[in-house]
This record gives sequence, C-alpha cells and structure tokens, in this order.
Amino acid sequence: MIVAMQSHATDEQIQNVIERMVELGFNVHRTTGETQTILAGVGTPSHFEVTEFQVLSGVHQAYRISSPYKLAGRGFRPEGTRITFPNGLVIGGDEIVVMAGPCSVESRDQIRLSASQVAAAGARFLRGGAYKPRSSPYSFQGMGVEGLKIMRDAADEYGLLVITEVMEISQIEQMLPYIDCFQVGARNMQNFNLLRELGQVRKPVAMKRGLAATIEEVLLSAEYILSGGNYDLMLVERGIRTFETATRNTMDISAIPVLKKLTHLPVLGDPSHGVGIRDFVPPMALASVAAGADGLLIEMHPNPDKAMSDGAQSLRPEQLTELIAKLRKLAPVVDRSISPAVDAVTA
Amino acid sequence: MIVAMQSHATDEQIQNVIERMVELGFNVHRTTGETQTILAGVGTPSHFEVTEFQVLSGVHQAYRISSPYKLAGRGFRPEGTRITFPNGLVIGGDEIVVMAGPCSVESRDQIRLSASQVAAAGARFLRGGAYKPRSSPYSFQGMGVEGLKIMRDAADEYGLLVITEVMEISQIEQMLPYIDCFQVGARNMQNFNLLRELGQVRKPVAMKRGLAATIEEVLLSAEYILSGGNYDLMLVERGIRTFETATRNTMDISAIPVLKKLTHLPVLGDPSHGVGIRDFVPPMALASVAAGADGLLIEMHPNPDKAMSDGAQSLRPEQLTELIAKLRKLAPVVDRSISPAVDAVTA
Amino acid sequence: MIVAMQSHATDEQIQNVIERMVELGFNVHRTTGETQTILAGVGTPSHFEVTEFQVLSGVHQAYRISSPYKLAGRGFRPEGTRITFPNGLVIGGDEIVVMAGPCSVESRDQIRLSASQVAAAGARFLRGGAYKPRSSPYSFQGMGVEGLKIMRDAADEYGLLVITEVMEISQIEQMLPYIDCFQVGARNMQNFNLLRELGQVRKPVAMKRGLAATIEEVLLSAEYILSGGNYDLMLVERGIRTFETATRNTMDISAIPVLKKLTHLPVLGDPSHGVGIRDFVPPMALASVAAGADGLLIEMHPNPDKAMSDGAQSLRPEQLTELIAKLRKLAPVVDRSISPAVDAVTA
Amino acid sequence: MIVAMQSHATDEQIQNVIERMVELGFNVHRTTGETQTILAGVGTPSHFEVTEFQVLSGVHQAYRISSPYKLAGRGFRPEGTRITFPNGLVIGGDEIVVMAGPCSVESRDQIRLSASQVAAAGARFLRGGAYKPRSSPYSFQGMGVEGLKIMRDAADEYGLLVITEVMEISQIEQMLPYIDCFQVGARNMQNFNLLRELGQVRKPVAMKRGLAATIEEVLLSAEYILSGGNYDLMLVERGIRTFETATRNTMDISAIPVLKKLTHLPVLGDPSHGVGIRDFVPPMALASVAAGADGLLIEMHPNPDKAMSDGAQSLRPEQLTELIAKLRKLAPVVDRSISPAVDAVTA
Repeated sequence: MIVAMQSHATDEQIQNVIERMVELGFNVHRTTGETQTILAGVGTPSHFEVTEFQVLSGVHQAYRISSPYKLAGRGFRPEGTRITFPNGLVIGGDEIVVMAGPCSVESRDQIRLSASQVAAAGARFLRGGAYKPRSSPYSFQGMGVEGLKIMRDAADEYGLLVITEVMEISQIEQMLPYIDCFQVGARNMQNFNLLRELGQVRKPVAMKRGLAATIEEVLLSAEYILSGGNYDLMLVERGIRTFETATRNTMDISAIPVLKKLTHLPVLGDPSHGVGIRDFVPPMALASVAAGADGLLIEMHPNPDKAMSDGAQSLRPEQLTELIAKLRKLAPVVDRSISPAVDAVTA
Repeated sequence: MIVAMQSHATDEQIQNVIERMVELGFNVHRTTGETQTILAGVGTPSHFEVTEFQVLSGVHQAYRISSPYKLAGRGFRPEGTRITFPNGLVIGGDEIVVMAGPCSVESRDQIRLSASQVAAAGARFLRGGAYKPRSSPYSFQGMGVEGLKIMRDAADEYGLLVITEVMEISQIEQMLPYIDCFQVGARNMQNFNLLRELGQVRKPVAMKRGLAATIEEVLLSAEYILSGGNYDLMLVERGIRTFETATRNTMDISAIPVLKKLTHLPVLGDPSHGVGIRDFVPPMALASVAAGADGLLIEMHPNPDKAMSDGAQSLRPEQLTELIAKLRKLAPVVDRSISPAVDAVTA
Repeated sequence: MIVAMQSHATDEQIQNVIERMVELGFNVHRTTGETQTILAGVGTPSHFEVTEFQVLSGVHQAYRISSPYKLAGRGFRPEGTRITFPNGLVIGGDEIVVMAGPCSVESRDQIRLSASQVAAAGARFLRGGAYKPRSSPYSFQGMGVEGLKIMRDAADEYGLLVITEVMEISQIEQMLPYIDCFQVGARNMQNFNLLRELGQVRKPVAMKRGLAATIEEVLLSAEYILSGGNYDLMLVERGIRTFETATRNTMDISAIPVLKKLTHLPVLGDPSHGVGIRDFVPPMALASVAAGADGLLIEMHPNPDKAMSDGAQSLRPEQLTELIAKLRKLAPVVDRSISPAVDAVTA
Repeated sequence: MIVAMQSHATDEQIQNVIERMVELGFNVHRTTGETQTILAGVGTPSHFEVTEFQVLSGVHQAYRISSPYKLAGRGFRPEGTRITFPNGLVIGGDEIVVMAGPCSVESRDQIRLSASQVAAAGARFLRGGAYKPRSSPYSFQGMGVEGLKIMRDAADEYGLLVITEVMEISQIEQMLPYIDCFQVGARNMQNFNLLRELGQVRKPVAMKRGLAATIEEVLLSAEYILSGGNYDLMLVERGIRTFETATRNTMDISAIPVLKKLTHLPVLGDPSHGVGIRDFVPPMALASVAAGADGLLIEMHPNPDKAMSDGAQSLRPEQLTELIAKLRKLAPVVDRSISPAVDAVTA
C-alpha cells in the first residue's frame, strides 16, 4: 500500500498513519519530498481496507498495490487452467467449446428436440434452466428437479454434457447427480455464502459476471470458490448495465482479453444475455471468440416464438448451425479450433 | 400492450402478431394508418414478455403499458403505507426516523457504547451487521447469532429498535427473536428465493436498491415480498454504480421522490453507502430528507478509525448528534418532524 | 507520481522507468521491498501522462499524486470565490441565488411575462436560451441576437440579471452587451477552444458538467477558463447519464459537497435538467441546497404546455413561487439565506 | 406517437391530449378499453417532443413510434452507403479498410516514418492529429496547419489517404486542401454548429460516438450532416463510459451490428480509444471486424514510449503488421476482404 500525505500534513498526522500501517503488519518506508511525504507499506497483511486510510487526517490519497485476490491471479498458475470433463472434453485448451440450449426447461419433448439440434450443430454442452430467477413473481419459475432429470437424459442420448444454474445452497446436493457443471447467475455473483459452498464441491463451476460488477470484483468472487479448493472454475462475460437501451445489456467484449491477462481461469462469452436480441447474437459470438474467449454460452430454442422465457434472444436451430459453422472457420485465425459435431464423433 | 408495426408490414405479419396477442389473453384493437398499423392490446394477461413481440417479424416496436407490479404500485394504497413497530414508532407517517450504528457488530462493549450514543443523538433504531457479505473472502465475516443477542440487549437498554441484515433463508428463523426489522442488502435485492421467504414472515423488512437496479426492478422485487402477504416493507436508496469514482457510489436522490410517487411504500435514504466518505454523509442525509425520505440509515461508530469494516464512511458520534440536530430543523420545511431523543422520552 | 513495479521486475526494467521519470523532471526515491520495488517521483513536471507509465514493461501500477488542476483547487483560494455582479449581488457568499426562466426565448411577450413571474417569486437572474443546441436538426433552433435583446429589456424592467448559453466562439462578442453571465452547456464542457476564449473575457461564466464528465474532468475544464485569467467561474451539476430511465438524467447531488471540498468555485444545482420531470424539480432543488449548493438554475415557463422546448421539465409560475418560499425556510438550516423578492427591494 | 392514458383519466384530460396531438398535426385514433384509453397519433409532424405528453395531466405513458431521424435510417438507402475516395478506395463495400497512425503529429520525421510503416503493414489511411483536444490546458495542443502539410506529404509519398480531426468551424477551410476525410471527435459529436457546417462540405466525414451518446443520438447527429447534403459519412464506435475502470472506456462492440441494421452508413471501430491499453487493441480490432465493422481506426507510433500523447494505447509498428495479417485471415470468415498492402499495389 502507498499513502501520499497532503503537502501540509503535520508530523503528528504522518506518525498516526505510520502507526496504523505498522499495526496492520506493514513495514513502512518513508519518502520525504520538498512538499509532500509518501509512505510505502511493504508486506502483505491478511486483510485491510484502503478506504480506511483515505479518510485519515492529513492523507491526500491511498493506493492498494498488491491485488486483493491471490488464487485467481494469473501468477498463481501462469500456464492457464484447463478443466477436464468426464467425457474427456477440455475447456481452457485449444478447443473453443459451445454450450447451447433453451433458457428454461419446459418439457421432455422440448429438451430432447433441443439436445438433438444442439448436438447436430456442433455444441458440446446442453444448457437450460430448471430453477429460474425471474424479476417478476408472476413469471414462470422453472420445473425444478424434474427438469434436471429431463436434461440429463437428453444430454446422455446425444452425447452432450449438462450445465445449469444453481440459485441456492439447498439446491447443490440435489443437482449433483444430474449435471456436469454448475452455473452461477449474474444476480448471485456476490452471493458469498453460495460461492463458499461451491468451493467445497468437486464439480466445475461457470460464474457469470454481475450486471454492475467490475472485473476486480469478478476475480474477488472467484477467490471465494477457489479458496474452498474448487479450482475448476470458468468466468462468463454476459453484459453490463450502461445507459445504452438499444441492447438489453452492453456486452463488455474487452473484459475477455483483460480477464485472460489477469487470471488463469477460462473465460466464456454469453452473447445471448449480452445483447438480448436474436439477430445480434451471432456477430457478438464471433466477436467473443475473436477477442479470445475459450467458449460460448448461447440460448437456442426449437421454437423461440413459443418459448416460456427469453424467446427474443434465443437463436433458431438453423441459426445455431450456421453460427458454429462460421466459428469453425474463425477459430484458426486466433490459433484455436472448434470441436467437430458430435454425430461426426459417434460415427 | 401496444405493438407498432413497421410501415411495410404485410397482412400476414400483422395477423401473426394479433394471434399471439389474443393467445396471451389480450383484446386487440387495430388502428390502420396511411403508412403504419398500430395494435393496442387491452386486458391484463397474468404474464408476458414485451421483448417477445419486439422480435416478431414485421414489428417496429412494442411497449408494455400496465406496470408489471401491482401490489407495490401507489394505486394499491394511495394513502401510503405506515409501518408500526412494537414500541409504537411509525415509519411512513409524519416522523422522519433515523436508524444508526456501526457497520459490523464487533463486541458487546462496542455495541453498548454505540447504542448509548445512537439513542442520545436522537436515532430510534440501532443498526449493525451480525452477518457480513464481504467482497473478499479474506475480510472479517461477522459474529453471527452472538452478535444478534448483543444488539438486542443493547437496544433494549437504550430504548431502541433493532434492524440488521439477513443474507440467507436459513438465517431468518434464528434472527426472528432478536430483531425488529430485517434488512435486505443491495446484493440480495434480486435473490428472489430469499424475498419470497421474507414475504411469509410477519416482521417489517427494509429492502435496499441493488447497485445496478432500475427503479422498476426495485418495485418488482418489492412485489415478491408483498405478494407473500408481508406488507410492512420499506425501500432504501443507497447509491447506484456509475462512472464517477470520486464517491463510492452515486446516490440517486431523485429515486426518493420518484419512488414516493410510484409506490405507497416508505422510502429511506442510506447516505453512508451512497457516498462512502464520512464528510459527505451529513449533506447527503439532509438532501435525502429534503427530497422526501421517510427515514435514514446511517453508519456511526464510536471509534471509526478502529472499525473492522467501513470505517471510512462511519460518522463519529458527535457528527451524528450534530446531523440529527440539523435534521430536526429541516424536517418542518418539508412538513415532517423528527422524533425527540430517547432520553427525553424516558425522562 | 508513484510507480509500483511488478514483483518480478528486472533491474533493467526498473532503471528504464527511473530514467523516464527523471527525463520528465521528477526526483525519484526508490523503496526496495522483499518482493516489490516502489518508485516515488517527487516534483511537479508541467505535464505527463500517468497511463504512459502503466504500460512500461515491468510496471504493476502507476498513480498520479498531485491533482492535474492547480487554479481550480480549493488550496488556491481556501476562503472560496465570491462573484460580484453589477447590481451588487454576490454568488458564493451567504445568499443562495435562484436563476429561473424558460428554456428558450420564444417571443417578447413570453419573456416579459416570464421576467415578471421570476422576479415576483424571488429569483435574481432571468435565464433563457437564445441559441439552442438541439439533438435533432428538425427542432427549433433559437432566436439569436434578437432573443438576447428581448431578455435584456425584460430583465432590466424587473431588476433581474441575465444568464444565457454561449455555444460558439463567434457568439461571445455579440452576447457581451446583453448579458451578465455566460452559461456553458453540458455538451460544450470539453469544447476547449470555447473555454479558452471565455478565459479571456471579463464576465462571469457558469459551466455545466458534461453528461459523462467525472468531477476531475469538470475541474480540468474549469482550469481552461481560470488559466486565461477569468476567475469569475461557477460550476453547475445538472445530472449525469446512468442506466436509470425513470428520470431524464441522474442528478449527482453528491457532486455538490464533493466540489465544495475540492474547489473554491461556487456550485449551482440544475434540477430541471437533472431530473427532467416537472414534479420532481422542487424536491431536487431542496436537496441541492440541503447538500450545499450556492444557487439554482431552474426552468420556469408561463405556460409550459405550450413551450417550444423542454416544457415537460419547466415549472409553472406558481410552482416556482412555492419552491422559493420553501427554500427561504430551508436556507437557515444550512446557515444560508435567500435574497428577498425583487419587488420587496424596489419597494 | 402513442399516448396511453391513466386508467382513471377523465374525459376532459383525454380531450386535452387529443387537442394537443391534433394541434401538432397528428390524426388521432382512439381505443377505449375497459379501464384504459389509448390514443394513437398517425402522421409525421415536423417536430414534437414526446416528453411533453408524458407530463400532461391524466397521461400514463407516451411513446414515439417513428424514428426521429430520417436520412440516416437504413430505409433511406437499404443497399448501404459506399464512399469512394480519390484513389478509388471504397469504404462500405467488400473491403475492410484500416486507418492507422500516431495520436499527434509531432514532427516531419515522425510522420514520414509512421506513413512508411502504416503503408507497409497494409493500412490505407494515415491518421494523426494536427489539432488536439486535451482535457488539461497544460498538455501538448498540436502543430496546426504545419502538421496537416506534413501529413499530406507523407501520405502522398506512400500512397495513403489522410484522415484527421476537425475541432472547430474555422478550421474546415484550412484543412480542405490537405485531407481526404474529416474526423469529428467524440467530444464534438453534439457540437451541432460544427456538424451543420460539415454538412455543407463535399468531403467525407467520420464521426465518432460521444462517450455517453446513445445509438439514437449518434444517428440524430448524423442527421445534421446528412441534412446539409453531405452523404459521405461514416460512424465510429470508440467506447462509452461505464463503471469499469480496468479499461479506459468500454468499447460497445454490439453497437456495430446494431448500427449496421439501423443505418446505411459505414461503421468503423476504434479499439485504441475503446480500450486504451496497447495489448488489448489487437483482440478488440479482431472483435470489431468479426462483429461487422467496415473498417478500423488504429493508433500506431514508431516509438510509443516517446509519444507526446496517448502512447499507452498506440501499437508498435510490428504489432500493427501482425494485426493486419490476422485481419486478412479473419475477413473471409465474415465475407469481407482486406486491401493488399500498398507496396504490393505500387509494385
């Protein structure tokens, strides 16, 4: 930490700041200039708040130097994290992995049809919500465990993995038998108790960025999961809230290369929530991969006009097929590849 | 709902939209202009998503007309909600109620001292966190139930009520015996399962606005609690996230009069989190009341320089006393009053 | 400036940074910790960009310590700037000054009527736009010099001063004979050529904050005017752009106390543009003064329903009268006063 | 326009709204529902403000249906605008055009060297600022006309076109002989007088999106230039201001496909200002093209560490070469191409 004192700070004020720094466990180096004294705190106290120093009397400004996250930092695992799934699929390696499916699990038929279309298009994960966080209490709230079973069956039939959202600690246990990856929604990115529990689990997690979360906060939330011992974590950029209303959110594509630099964790793009309008999902999916994403989360519905939720942002099946075909051509430009479609594999 | 078709929309496209509207339960009125057809949907289907219509073929724009919230709307209770507490204190009436205390419960002595100072200054509620949501897993995480007991004892001794944050469904039961009001933090404003449970409780709730929540979303979240049958709800403006970095958040003072117009629920201001810097808390507290707030949530710590969290934004005891003295003069300007200090009452 | 090197920075990288700092005119103090080297640059080079250091190889983070503005800083004139107008009115002193009038000058009758109402309500300035910056080229664009003459005449008749917006360097000369204060609009806050010219003028200026301008940028723009020798400058908070759509902008009331601390310049609130909806203007005006504003800019129109621009946010005459009456009661709470209405003075 | 009345609106209120609509030139169609009356205004009055209706008594909500821009809309020229330059280069066609060069013109040598590197890398335009809008009055302010001559000479020598920023009406005349394209900076996107003058010029213009400008405002500003008769206009996405501080701005990549749908004008990406950090410029350039951009504006400096401005975001020459090589591979994925490097052409 560095504390820059005001130019007219008194010796007493300076001493007071030094004492507080020492109290927290810093070694303090003092630089006395013509007009200003600067205090550099060396060492790494387990926790402290830099704002506390900003309001001490005589302080001009205080800065934290070391990142407040440790396990999430790129330095912890410079080569990057690779997450391996039961069927051998790896996220964080050369392949760009597409996860696709409807917003909500609505029925067995809808999911089976979705799974066949998702697999045929070349995606490797079936996504879909069994528990739905809806901003209105009067909206459809999800099928629960029944929905999980439906997803598992359909995914197995078509050689897919299952990713779905967990909303609450009590759901973790019941989800474990059915899924391959937990998804933490944007609204739960700072539900720290939930994150802590997911740190205890031995199953991969994909955590979405909150609507107003800074990149540093994303990494601090990641720290909650990692510090519990669960290192199979991916981060998902899914749009932040800005003044622009032409799109549902503003997808922060630059967060992808920034995260890839700051952390060793794989980064996915979620263009469906990022823009929220079907026709803009394919260009934003391409942009995500061009910017360095390790994978994509995409909403697709067999019949979006009849979807029970988020139909407006769900691709039609043929749009998904076309998009993945384009991604397959794009991947080599950024030195990556796209897994071949499942039917090609099983053939 | 209103759907404005594109100027070149075909009859088939128009028919398709009309059918979907009827399917949802609308009566459709059609206005055919020289260049454009407009469809007005009359009636109130239980739920539908306006975005679904925005992507139908031939649609120019679709608008929701009726508010998606019902119980929270001002029309539901035009005279305004008044919440009465066990000691007779009313929020939402003439009196402006101040709730004050430290960010975290740290020890019995700290809370007892805080309670005496809070009461002496003229506040009516003791606030303080027993469970703390911290963005870093390495920060202090709170005292739990032990902290609740400490608060209850101190509050009783000084004639105060207790408000504290609930972070998780499992905490509700254990909190009930000790508190007078649940506080839902900004990060949990869209934790819908928690809100639903709080709708089942018969104890007042103060729900904070999320960092990136629109006013409409605040009211939709309120609807979750109200629709469970718990009408003793207050809303709290505590700052939104913007590009400005000179303050911790940007306190949206205009949300206070806007909420007062849209809803019957009492509205509190939380200037401590709103600005995050001690010296700016008093002017923002005055501004909140000038703009129509029914009460204030304010952080005060007997010794902010030693606080375990949020010390930078906590008032010193004498600052709280001075602030409430000013509020007492301000209240009549906006046709309100401030409760006399507790010792005056008990005398 | 402070540069914190990465923990694995090489001696060569450190030397390179030191050389660049010295080149710019800094004296460099080096602190070598166990894992990290910190370089403190003491001195005040005329200009440098801190971002330049952030991308030098081996650098972890770089911080500017001294404010990039000098004349605008509170330290330059700790007692605060007081601007005296020809009729003796002072802004920045004890009195809170209200400036009111229609958005646009539409006709001689409209302005004469406005002036009489503004004066009767107790405002001291007549405001109104003769040149209008409109976001659509098809909207009303203003009356120009003819409008200025109309304002001057009406203001003189009712003992008011005149404030109006300057949009372009070429307008300055023609405005000088008619006005008492230039207003720089939000869209021109970073029109640096215009600011520089206004620095050469010897007439007060009220500069509005840009829609996306940080407080630091407001002060840097102020520096352009001050460094030309024009010290009669006021700053105006008029709302920033956020994700909230319930109001036209989000009025950043906290900018008022923050600016009052950082700079010696008087600060005005403009609640009309801040919220953009008539009924919320009075509470936001009260909030501005409660938070420390030295004055207010308020839109009032004799018949807002017929206004050629911004009618939705213009107060009706009786609302202005009622608002100023409330402000008169509020002022003493924050140790200020409101000038008596003009007719009382001339009586 | 559509006006939805409140459910309890009186006949008098409804009549009042109808009269005002008719007064503006609308034909009004009335839909009377069980609880609510809806008024649809058909026709296209030259200008009106929808906010005016929102505050009329008895009105629940008012919506504008027709876009407030006409010439900028895709419908005006569905096939898309193609801008042809003197050397035959076309923007808006199949080719993706790269414009590159330093932030500021610093000297003849620097520009000559830049031009040779830019041309060799495969860019077609030399960019560079002769007049600089700097947020601090103490920063470098540009070389003026001398800088323009230097650019023209260097561009001619290496077969490039010249694009540079115009800051003020008075500069237009003096720039005309030296440049091929005017650039309007983000800070001037709502300098309507400047836009109007550029509408009179017969030379292409590239207008940048303002830091807080919505996409609709971008198109309204475009309308100012188009309505003067200058149809050779390009739009530039260069980042908006959000709460994220890890990057200089948040580049709104989704604005590219959204603009391509709403307007016929070519759209460029400016990743240098979009992210502001050298290492993230190449991924964001790739993302822009993947999302549909017609071209790129990129800062490159022969020696960024010594640049007089914006060195932190300028690519090194070899980075530009490598980036354009990648773009050449990416272009076919989105059915586009990249012009071959100039030396190949002249060979």
